[in-house]
Amino acid sequence: MPVSSRRLLYSIAVAAAAVAFVSADAGAESAPPLPVPWAVYGGNVAHDSSFGAPAGPSGDALRRGVSWRFPEANAIPLGVPLGKDGAALGPRSAPVKTTQFLGSAVGVTVVGSVVYAESDSGYVYALDAVTGRQLWRAHTDNAAMGDPIVAGGRVFAGSGDTGFSFSQVLRAQGGAKTGLVRGLSWAAVYAFDAKTGKELWRYGTKGEDMSSECYAHNTLYFANGDGHMYALDPATGKPKWITDIGGFDSMSSCNIFHHKVYAGFTDPNDLVAVDETSGAIAWRTSFPNVANTGMGDNSPTIDAADNQVIQVSVADARKTGGKASVDTAVLAVNADTGKIQWKRLLGRGDSPPAYKASVAMVRNGIVYVSSPSTSRLSALDAKTGNVLWSSTIPHPSVPGLGRGAVTYRDGTLYQSTGAWLYAWDAKTGKLRHDLYIGGRFGIANPVIVGGTLFVTNSWGWVIAEPLAAVR
Amino acid sequence: MPVSSRRLLYSIAVAAAAVAFVSADAGAESAPPLPVPWAVYGGNVAHDSSFGAPAGPSGDALRRGVSWRFPEANAIPLGVPLGKDGAALGPRSAPVKTTQFLGSAVGVTVVGSVVYAESDSGYVYALDAVTGRQLWRAHTDNAAMGDPIVAGGRVFAGSGDTGFSFSQVLRAQGGAKTGLVRGLSWAAVYAFDAKTGKELWRYGTKGEDMSSECYAHNTLYFANGDGHMYALDPATGKPKWITDIGGFDSMSSCNIFHHKVYAGFTDPNDLVAVDETSGAIAWRTSFPNVANTGMGDNSPTIDAADNQVIQVSVADARKTGGKASVDTAVLAVNADTGKIQWKRLLGRGDSPPAYKASVAMVRNGIVYVSSPSTSRLSALDAKTGNVLWSSTIPHPSVPGLGRGAVTYRDGTLYQSTGAWLYAWDAKTGKLRHDLYIGGRFGIANPVIVGGTLFVTNSWGWVIAEPLAAVR
Repeated sequence: MPVSSRRLLYSIAVAAAAVAFVSADAGAESAPPLPVPWAVYGGNVAHDSSFGAPAGPSGDALRRGVSWRFPEANAIPLGVPLGKDGAALGPRSAPVKTTQFLGSAVGVTVVGSVVYAESDSGYVYALDAVTGRQLWRAHTDNAAMGDPIVAGGRVFAGSGDTGFSFSQVLRAQGGAKTGLVRGLSWAAVYAFDAKTGKELWRYGTKGEDMSSECYAHNTLYFANGDGHMYALDPATGKPKWITDIGGFDSMSSCNIFHHKVYAGFTDPNDLVAVDETSGAIAWRTSFPNVANTGMGDNSPTIDAADNQVIQVSVADARKTGGKASVDTAVLAVNADTGKIQWKRLLGRGDSPPAYKASVAMVRNGIVYVSSPSTSRLSALDAKTGNVLWSSTIPHPSVPGLGRGAVTYRDGTLYQSTGAWLYAWDAKTGKLRHDLYIGGRFGIANPVIVGGTLFVTNSWGWVIAEPLAAVR
Repeated sequence: MPVSSRRLLYSIAVAAAAVAFVSADAGAESAPPLPVPWAVYGGNVAHDSSFGAPAGPSGDALRRGVSWRFPEANAIPLGVPLGKDGAALGPRSAPVKTTQFLGSAVGVTVVGSVVYAESDSGYVYALDAVTGRQLWRAHTDNAAMGDPIVAGGRVFAGSGDTGFSFSQVLRAQGGAKTGLVRGLSWAAVYAFDAKTGKELWRYGTKGEDMSSECYAHNTLYFANGDGHMYALDPATGKPKWITDIGGFDSMSSCNIFHHKVYAGFTDPNDLVAVDETSGAIAWRTSFPNVANTGMGDNSPTIDAADNQVIQVSVADARKTGGKASVDTAVLAVNADTGKIQWKRLLGRGDSPPAYKASVAMVRNGIVYVSSPSTSRLSALDAKTGNVLWSSTIPHPSVPGLGRGAVTYRDGTLYQSTGAWLYAWDAKTGKLRHDLYIGGRFGIANPVIVGGTLFVTNSWGWVIAEPLAAVR
């Protein structure tokens, strides 16, 4: 098909989609409105980043679907297959380094008609959602790898890195299996003015602050690389309480439910619930055979209907004939007691480099979750963990696929992984469509607002794509 | 004494010094001219950064002595005692983090009337030596911690960081004592146009490139965090040879003598000599009881008169009653064979955090070397290692004093350590003068040009001070 014809069909599709969404907004569309505040990673406790467009002309444009690419500082062309320094670092390490130190690691935040994104290159961006134009850019001292939290006219972002000092290596050589501090260079949580990007305060810590914060009842919470959970006053950055958890949190963005703050930690590999008001540890649950940064890398997801926390973890690492393999465990835990309800292993596969597990999404009694070691997306019954369907993600890439959460809209699951966007039938797991973007998606979840899909990329791009082009 | 009187006396001193230096330049002054190219760390193989001022009006000003402070990007006030995030990090960690991730780590380079400096914040600066005005600033992807090498109209700088990935920690937990790769984020060596700062090429590597390169016979050499010695074509950045040494080089800037390139490596803790042309390992010498990053952190110094390499190392680490202590070893090794000529222990003291040893300077048959664990400066007979004198550096600071090389001028040793500049009688070790600067000097060696002392600071400052004010 010639390009002109494809463009024509595409325009027709976009127009049709716009019509569909107008009617959908009138009643049939299932997506809730954009949350205010944007309190947790992904915009809600289920990590399902699907929202209706706001009222007004900007909302109308987002409902129709907009398309733009915004290059962050240090962005590299999307067509470079391995990322920066590919020749020097090789196909296994190069994409990981680019994901950890160059572009955006996770999803965006959308509040009103503004897209907020963080980048490893040490910036927080506010972009016009309709045009992709930069409204402001604020600086952080180290990689900003989270989902910006926006509340009360402030944008909160943490920064840090994945490194360990030589003294931590010496501790490890001496046999230490717990109590390591993660984070080499500057680590801090920042508050910026949501309108101007002006830094309001900065709270420095010993270990990295890579995971996203969470917000409730005028308090900002985060778990970090020095093994603590912190509760800060969002106006001043002064701590209300600090609780020593042990272990370290890497990318396990906290979640909040029933006045408890949840986060995963590594070494010991525990899922921990802390009382929102007092900071007391309500419960901590250990899982057998958890491997590597299994718990500390994945954000817990709330299954509110079943009063449980869903946590994904790397499990049962083995080395057979020089080849490392892992399994991926999905765990459902009672939100009040920490008691394990069920556990499901998704299958053994090659050990991916760096971040090895994934973030689950829960909707209507189903847990959607991927396994990077097998590059499969699965749907599990939230009550039993039974597998409803499981599908192989096409276009495999060396470092494994399916680390970010999927997003549901009108019977379709949207996924951003590897160099592609995917649309899956949520009922059957059948692939409906794939769209090549290039570069590599980190632990990125698509954020859908009206008829537009927003996503960030490890190569340093913030991307707006009409939903009609993906589905 | 009122400030006005002090100023008056100071002016008189500067004027007197100017007179003294004019006459000194006429014959008595011992310093050689500024080197072209600036081929090794400190400007010469003895690491004695003392030079006559160049001809012309700029040289005349430097001969009289100039005074300025240049703030690098992210510079913090010199009066902040612990550095950035002092409250969060505490007195032992805060100065280390600021030294590793904010300001300048080692000395400057001076070519003609231009001062070149690197900074941890990822920049290389060219400043007018007389005024401190910025001529250009170039960006590096990670901390630039070395002494810029300038040759053939190009400025060479390496960048990297001190970190280890989690997979390296797991290797250490598994018992690995060797073969670790140092360097977490981007690592590369850069060439910039000396006049404009324009990037000419960038050579990426797996491990960090923190130590300074060295240059000879139209080749650029460096040793790095992935345990290799590299020889690059300075025009293109293409490798001529790459030799696997094992271990990792942290801050051991290479040195060149008799067609061999020397550098220290950690794990195994060896001093290594590589043939300049072929890249073959000429010899490698292990020392008993070397501890921590003992060998890989310190730049070897050439004692040309005695055909030997002087290397300082952390030695004999112990932990008694929870208190860690180390000794500092000074080793003289035959430059051709690697055979140890003598070894001197400088005395046991508290283990400093991070960088624990020092860089020696050799002049007229005497090795000048400090021991950060005891905060003492010593003079050793270069032929025997016998201690000629040893003096305590005043104004102790938590992280230990005396890591950078001292600089000799007209019977006086100049030293930059802690928050102070010191002038010592080179013959007797008697303290002549100290001058408070503030902040903290890293592994910084003073560079003296005519009557001006140039030095960089971990708080992010490049400093020019009339020699007359220090002595």
